[in-house]
Amino acid sequence: MNYKYRFFDDYSEGAHANILDALNKTNLDQETGYGDDSFCIKAAEVLKDKIKNPNTAVHFVSGGTQANLIILSSMLKPYESVIAATTAHIAVHEAGAIEATGHKINTVLTDDGKLTVEKVKEVVEFHTDEHMVKPKVVFISNSTEVGTIYTKDDLQKLSDFCKENNLYLYLDGARLGSALMISGSDLALLDVANLVDVFYIGGTKNGALLGEAIVIVNEKLQENFRYHMKQRGALLAKGRVLGIQFLELFKDDLFPQLAKHANEMAAKLTRGIKSMGFKFLSDSPTNQIFPILPNKIIPELQKDYGFYVWKKIEENSAVRLVTSWATKEEAIDTFLADLKALA
Amino acid sequence: MNYKYRFFDDYSEGAHANILDALNKTNLDQETGYGDDSFCIKAAEVLKDKIKNPNTAVHFVSGGTQANLIILSSMLKPYESVIAATTAHIAVHEAGAIEATGHKINTVLTDDGKLTVEKVKEVVEFHTDEHMVKPKVVFISNSTEVGTIYTKDDLQKLSDFCKENNLYLYLDGARLGSALMISGSDLALLDVANLVDVFYIGGTKNGALLGEAIVIVNEKLQENFRYHMKQRGALLAKGRVLGIQFLELFKDDLFPQLAKHANEMAAKLTRGIKSMGFKFLSDSPTNQIFPILPNKIIPELQKDYGFYVWKKIEENSAVRLVTSWATKEEAIDTFLADLKALA
Amino acid sequence: MNYKYRFFDDYSEGAHANILDALNKTNLDQETGYGDDSFCIKAAEVLKDKIKNPNTAVHFVSGGTQANLIILSSMLKPYESVIAATTAHIAVHEAGAIEATGHKINTVLTDDGKLTVEKVKEVVEFHTDEHMVKPKVVFISNSTEVGTIYTKDDLQKLSDFCKENNLYLYLDGARLGSALMISGSDLALLDVANLVDVFYIGGTKNGALLGEAIVIVNEKLQENFRYHMKQRGALLAKGRVLGIQFLELFKDDLFPQLAKHANEMAAKLTRGIKSMGFKFLSDSPTNQIFPILPNKIIPELQKDYGFYVWKKIEENSAVRLVTSWATKEEAIDTFLADLKALA
Amino acid sequence: MNYKYRFFDDYSEGAHANILDALNKTNLDQETGYGDDSFCIKAAEVLKDKIKNPNTAVHFVSGGTQANLIILSSMLKPYESVIAATTAHIAVHEAGAIEATGHKINTVLTDDGKLTVEKVKEVVEFHTDEHMVKPKVVFISNSTEVGTIYTKDDLQKLSDFCKENNLYLYLDGARLGSALMISGSDLALLDVANLVDVFYIGGTKNGALLGEAIVIVNEKLQENFRYHMKQRGALLAKGRVLGIQFLELFKDDLFPQLAKHANEMAAKLTRGIKSMGFKFLSDSPTNQIFPILPNKIIPELQKDYGFYVWKKIEENSAVRLVTSWATKEEAIDTFLADLKALA
Repeated sequence: MNYKYRFFDDYSEGAHANILDALNKTNLDQETGYGDDSFCIKAAEVLKDKIKNPNTAVHFVSGGTQANLIILSSMLKPYESVIAATTAHIAVHEAGAIEATGHKINTVLTDDGKLTVEKVKEVVEFHTDEHMVKPKVVFISNSTEVGTIYTKDDLQKLSDFCKENNLYLYLDGARLGSALMISGSDLALLDVANLVDVFYIGGTKNGALLGEAIVIVNEKLQENFRYHMKQRGALLAKGRVLGIQFLELFKDDLFPQLAKHANEMAAKLTRGIKSMGFKFLSDSPTNQIFPILPNKIIPELQKDYGFYVWKKIEENSAVRLVTSWATKEEAIDTFLADLKALA
Repeated sequence: MNYKYRFFDDYSEGAHANILDALNKTNLDQETGYGDDSFCIKAAEVLKDKIKNPNTAVHFVSGGTQANLIILSSMLKPYESVIAATTAHIAVHEAGAIEATGHKINTVLTDDGKLTVEKVKEVVEFHTDEHMVKPKVVFISNSTEVGTIYTKDDLQKLSDFCKENNLYLYLDGARLGSALMISGSDLALLDVANLVDVFYIGGTKNGALLGEAIVIVNEKLQENFRYHMKQRGALLAKGRVLGIQFLELFKDDLFPQLAKHANEMAAKLTRGIKSMGFKFLSDSPTNQIFPILPNKIIPELQKDYGFYVWKKIEENSAVRLVTSWATKEEAIDTFLADLKALA
Repeated sequence: MNYKYRFFDDYSEGAHANILDALNKTNLDQETGYGDDSFCIKAAEVLKDKIKNPNTAVHFVSGGTQANLIILSSMLKPYESVIAATTAHIAVHEAGAIEATGHKINTVLTDDGKLTVEKVKEVVEFHTDEHMVKPKVVFISNSTEVGTIYTKDDLQKLSDFCKENNLYLYLDGARLGSALMISGSDLALLDVANLVDVFYIGGTKNGALLGEAIVIVNEKLQENFRYHMKQRGALLAKGRVLGIQFLELFKDDLFPQLAKHANEMAAKLTRGIKSMGFKFLSDSPTNQIFPILPNKIIPELQKDYGFYVWKKIEENSAVRLVTSWATKEEAIDTFLADLKALA
Repeated sequence: MNYKYRFFDDYSEGAHANILDALNKTNLDQETGYGDDSFCIKAAEVLKDKIKNPNTAVHFVSGGTQANLIILSSMLKPYESVIAATTAHIAVHEAGAIEATGHKINTVLTDDGKLTVEKVKEVVEFHTDEHMVKPKVVFISNSTEVGTIYTKDDLQKLSDFCKENNLYLYLDGARLGSALMISGSDLALLDVANLVDVFYIGGTKNGALLGEAIVIVNEKLQENFRYHMKQRGALLAKGRVLGIQFLELFKDDLFPQLAKHANEMAAKLTRGIKSMGFKFLSDSPTNQIFPILPNKIIPELQKDYGFYVWKKIEENSAVRLVTSWATKEEAIDTFLADLKALA
């Protein structure tokens, strides 16, 4: 399809220009393999500085499902399980990757893709003896799979509950950039690092060609992590590819800037669509928005713009529009103008 | 360490310039994710053309261990095993990745890292009933982990035996380029595709930033392969990264040219070292060579050149020198001159 | 606790006297190991006769969780999943045994522990591509974990849907005896064998010391099943222990008689409790019943009788009473008399 | 086949009469399920008394492969492996059960089925980094699969090495009775308990219908073991079946007496065969012996006696004769007489 613009997702383009430049400039430097190169080492240092925690372990892998399956299987004993929302990526969109490592996911129905202490507690209390799995990790994603975010208070409460109940808290940050950079956010990267045991920072959806940065804050969970990575096929021979990218993203704040841009483009879309009188499925402050449009104009709009229909609601449908670090303001303007003409 | 040149491995540099150029040129094209982009599709077509088999399935993944674990677990029922040399990458250097998918590797002692019909037969005949695993896949690598290669006749014999005995033949081609491009080779890519059930073509060690091309020739093994990939975390959101690279490698014969260059640099090293009177541990025609040098000069040489000591032999040691697509002829000349000065 | 009688479960006693007699009589016969003994062979023949299907494969294992994990992992490819009720034994009470073999369970909320075509269809239609697991087996238990049963029509509809949609139907028959022997049942063992792909017949809860008989009707699923059993530790060296028991249960209709007795004891309890004016949580025709009793008399009753409180309902609670092949009529009479005295 | 006697194995008969009597006597006692019955509790107490270690954890399971797979998977992290002889039951005769739980077995070639510090050390030193598995458990069996035994000194040395190198020592005691009860043994049950981290005591091959007693001495390895058992399908609903048997075996020294008898019958066979001038493949003091007989008489002998040919040696063959707790002296006498007549 020859679209004016694709709002399908935030990974339709390649990488930010700085990253390509860095790959070019360093290309013939000879480096040690498997993540022990100077770029990975430096990128890890920069990140540890940002979260003010030199005792953290940082590792780079190629994608989010890979990160999730390695991290979770490294945290769990065979009979232990992970608690997650029914909408969680690990529960729905990883083709059973976590179960393939031997672990059950205890799913919890939510309105907004977010876990709460109450819901987690219910799962924990239900599991009483050795005839059942033993819940051990609480999995959350921020932003969630439905575009919502955790506030600092949300995270603090979950963190406290986990500590009191001998549970680990793990945060999937495939879209952590967008979550932290929403307008008026009270949650900073430093808070995340202080409140969870392990998290990862998504590069793929925020300007990298590929790559996620795993951050293991809890020292008990750091031991021999590279063995887990190797065993799951995640130690890239040219680990530099990941190190170079994250070094570019982390130094000089490129990472938050790109996330901020994605959010701003989504916010502009939201304002424009609202001004035409359309409602939204949810109040998303992140780079995924869900306007409700009349069914009769959607096919017309899809001729020029790529996006998914999310949910039919009688004569209307919620559609999902995703912006990214690469979305140009003109694409937003053109879309709004074309929508207005159809509406 | 500040080396004149590192002969440690064939993945110390980044990627061939054509690949970086292509990544740059296509960077802002919006593409479908997860390997359904136009580059992956085109690269697969070019490869199918080369092996003259439109019914083959081609998939791209990020690394060799990942390729091996996905392929083998997709080929085996829970109680089936894979036969491999004790030196095989899957048996030694994948941190138990195959076992982590639930399968035993039946290892066979070899002189040269190569399996033969006799050795495979012995394993098959030993396994007689349900108290033992059932060997199902024969795993070979070409070139092998010790630099040796399979001739067309070697491969034909294994292929015939496997067909007669209801076994699958799988070839790990992490260094397939080097194996096929040795001087006087009688084995072509087309032969490999005709004789094995599944193989992969290594990009990482032959000019790509990352990436291996999995080729499933046997149609029975093609079904739902993308599910296996997703479940193991191998479907990259920006699959284009792999497609773009393999398209560059496969079109216009860049792939064989790079392998040929690596082999030629190794051959030049071999000739030069032989001319000084040194012997070799094996007669490797590929890009890994194993000259035997006096222990007393090795530390001196290691001040300027990176390489591993492979095996102590009294007052001498076999060392491993690896060349690559990126090795410049000057590096060879300088090394030979410096060795001569020390010898 | 020194109870007058325990209604906790149907496995509190040992085995029916015929079984102990047979174990005694055959004790010093020398037999082949691992299920190839003459008793296992004969018991399988008797069962195949009963279901009029000589092409069925029959295997004996020691328990229900073992049966479930071996059967399901033998039926599924790595990315395939099993659909089950949220109350299913495999979903709640097997400590993640199915996930430990690598497979996800797609759970479905039900009122009565029973799957319907509508619910199964919803799960199948939700799973559309390789980012999700691929549902392949429909798991049902009969009687269910909450005491309900499938009618012949229920089973026929599920069977038809599975066949049309390339799914397997698997029935966990831990309490199949009770389910088939309810008063007025329209479902016979022969029907079960005709309508499902695999099922097991529970011995442990119907008069055996231990043992479940796995019946693989679908010939495609029979291949190399003993390998699966061995790999999961289920081939008992003295497999005779299982063969002898099932031979006793299957010859001369001991199995249905024992189940009928358990049901009759439960029915007598039900009638007696109803006659005192108490209501029931569900209308169970099987050997598990759920009367609703006043909270104030429950602790008194628990001094003399073992049973679990199932669900608090304000000033009353549903309790679970389970009868078995070994429950004597006097125990029922005494319980009813004691309840009446308290009520 | 209608044999005068079967020397195939030590599990051809049922159980010792005391065990059957106990099963009969206790049959209608109502007991708690899943190993929490009074018999299991009492049997564990008796055993802890014998090894003078109240802090040990004791669990009963149905068979040896089940014991091995549960124990080893409970001891190992995903990337850790177990070291064993190439002849080890787990390496050859468990259909890949250990690998199916995700773990590699590092095998070591031995002359006699026994591991030594030297051989273990070699494996440990070979595994240097995260590209390889990390050996963690040393697996030994006593008696070994080829009938040999570990002396107290053998075990002490392995134990010391393991402690010094942060390895666990695990002993598979499928035939521990026979190993400890050989004439002149310097190894007692108490020594085993003091020197290893975990072991199991085989009941199946020493008079039980089924059952192995797992003894976890190392307290770090005791936590939540019942979860592992449940997840692998090893918690029998009527766990009493195992408890009753081990209580009979452990009280009043029935267990050692039965093993002693088996050894004596084997010793009598050995003396008789030696007196006819035949040689033996090994000098086995246990209940498995390997006389070397002329090929020409073996088929004649096999008409009346069941046994396996172990190894062809030109015009002779080593055969395996196994005695058990149930072997009557007359069977030995008859065999020797018949052999003499043929020789």
